[in-house]
Amino acid sequence: MLTAWTVSCQAPEESKTADPLASLASLEWIDLSYAFDSATLYWPNNPTGFELEAEAEGMTEGGYFYSSYSLSTPEHGGTHLDAPIHFSEKGQKLDELRLDQLTGAAVLIDVSELALVDRDYRIDTAAILAWEKENGQIPEHSIVLFRTGYGKFYPDREKYFGTAKMGLEAILELHFPGIHPEAAQFLAEKRKVNAVGLDTPSLDFGQSKDFAAHQVLMGHNIPGFENVANLDQLPASGFYVVALPMKIKGGSGGPLRVIAGVGRL
Amino acid sequence: MLTAWTVSCQAPEESKTADPLASLASLEWIDLSYAFDSATLYWPNNPTGFELEAEAEGMTEGGYFYSSYSLSTPEHGGTHLDAPIHFSEKGQKLDELRLDQLTGAAVLIDVSELALVDRDYRIDTAAILAWEKENGQIPEHSIVLFRTGYGKFYPDREKYFGTAKMGLEAILELHFPGIHPEAAQFLAEKRKVNAVGLDTPSLDFGQSKDFAAHQVLMGHNIPGFENVANLDQLPASGFYVVALPMKIKGGSGGPLRVIAGVGRL
Ligand SMILES: [Zn+2]
Ligand SMILES: [Zn+2]
Repeated sequence: MLTAWTVSCQAPEESKTADPLASLASLEWIDLSYAFDSATLYWPNNPTGFELEAEAEGMTEGGYFYSSYSLSTPEHGGTHLDAPIHFSEKGQKLDELRLDQLTGAAVLIDVSELALVDRDYRIDTAAILAWEKENGQIPEHSIVLFRTGYGKFYPDREKYFGTAKMGLEAILELHFPGIHPEAAQFLAEKRKVNAVGLDTPSLDFGQSKDFAAHQVLMGHNIPGFENVANLDQLPASGFYVVALPMKIKGGSGGPLRVIAGVGRL
Repeated sequence: MLTAWTVSCQAPEESKTADPLASLASLEWIDLSYAFDSATLYWPNNPTGFELEAEAEGMTEGGYFYSSYSLSTPEHGGTHLDAPIHFSEKGQKLDELRLDQLTGAAVLIDVSELALVDRDYRIDTAAILAWEKENGQIPEHSIVLFRTGYGKFYPDREKYFGTAKMGLEAILELHFPGIHPEAAQFLAEKRKVNAVGLDTPSLDFGQSKDFAAHQVLMGHNIPGFENVANLDQLPASGFYVVALPMKIKGGSGGPLRVIAGVGRL
């Protein structure tokens, strides 16, 4: 049984004396990450995706089993993080992100009802305010996850991206929901969020030509999480996110393992 | 200010009412991961190490900045995880590891005094029992980290591995400390630990020919963390570890981002 905790910006007085390790033992962690394999989805113009090559696999001369592989991947594909430098020349590189930006109390804003009937839907400030009316104002430094419902299509390229075509010319035919640049600005400036994630291939909607939501968020050093999995398993608030990207020196992004800690009844 | 919590095997009655979100908010996270770059250390027989290639970097025609890279790496190098399948034919693959194996209360056993004066030192059961005499028995399902002190040499290949040579012939000249197979067995069977990590390139010492500590741990489906960073910043117990490897389908291991949560005074 899962339950949502009450979101509170400050630790209640009594919990300071309680054993924090014991209360952490009551957490149920949910994996919000897809595995990387040959089906992993990348932007249509990527010539190659995720590749795993065997270096060793089987019994050794020493009489014991041994397997080892080597991998290659573009930074941006599957469940991954966009570092601010991806779209902001002076933004943080992946290895410069602080752990306090990548961990913390989180909220889930479900816009799937609107997004599933309009592949070009953009999450606007009104959708955020509607969520706040029900759940209270998003606390500063929150990690904000949006559920568009498109996660259920992953990794079916046609249903997820709106086209199964590959190559540069496919980019004009992308149709999936994203974040309106004004909503991105609202989250950055009025709610001072730590990070934003969603269950689509991009923070911006498929038809974006200027990636304005990326530009706004990354201009504020706010990282993004894309192709986030299992958002249907989360409550609206009262959970904790740990988002740990592979620590690529100078990276513009990279493979992300992101998990959510939810209270167990 | 950092402080260690008291390790307790069971949640004290009063802490059941503590708010886990508040406990998490009181944590200071410490990064135990090295960044991946051209200096990242791999086993000497790897023909290539970590490579990052630019796909785009600079102003676009659209008038905004954009950077994106592609990477390749052997699974086993830098701060990384060994999945049980690495040395155990029926062991878990990387993506089969459960989050409850990769998160939890942890202990740090500092053996640097013995290890730094003997490059062939193997951590034995006596060293674990000596730690327990001071700190109490290692609770079941703990994540156990060993500090040999060799982390301070990283990424100086000669000081860290005991030889700067590369290629297959270098393997005979490896000299760094590791875990004695009997201690591995003690941890697996008598302490039922969840995972084991250390600040050397391998769970086994450099002179191992059969990787017996690997075989024992992985035969019990216990993953290993190698080249763990910043162990000098941890208390002996009372902290929480989150170890999130890149989720490689069928992987024998992979790049690991591992962090420790320590109480803040
Ligand atoms: Zn991206
Ligand atoms: Zn390894």
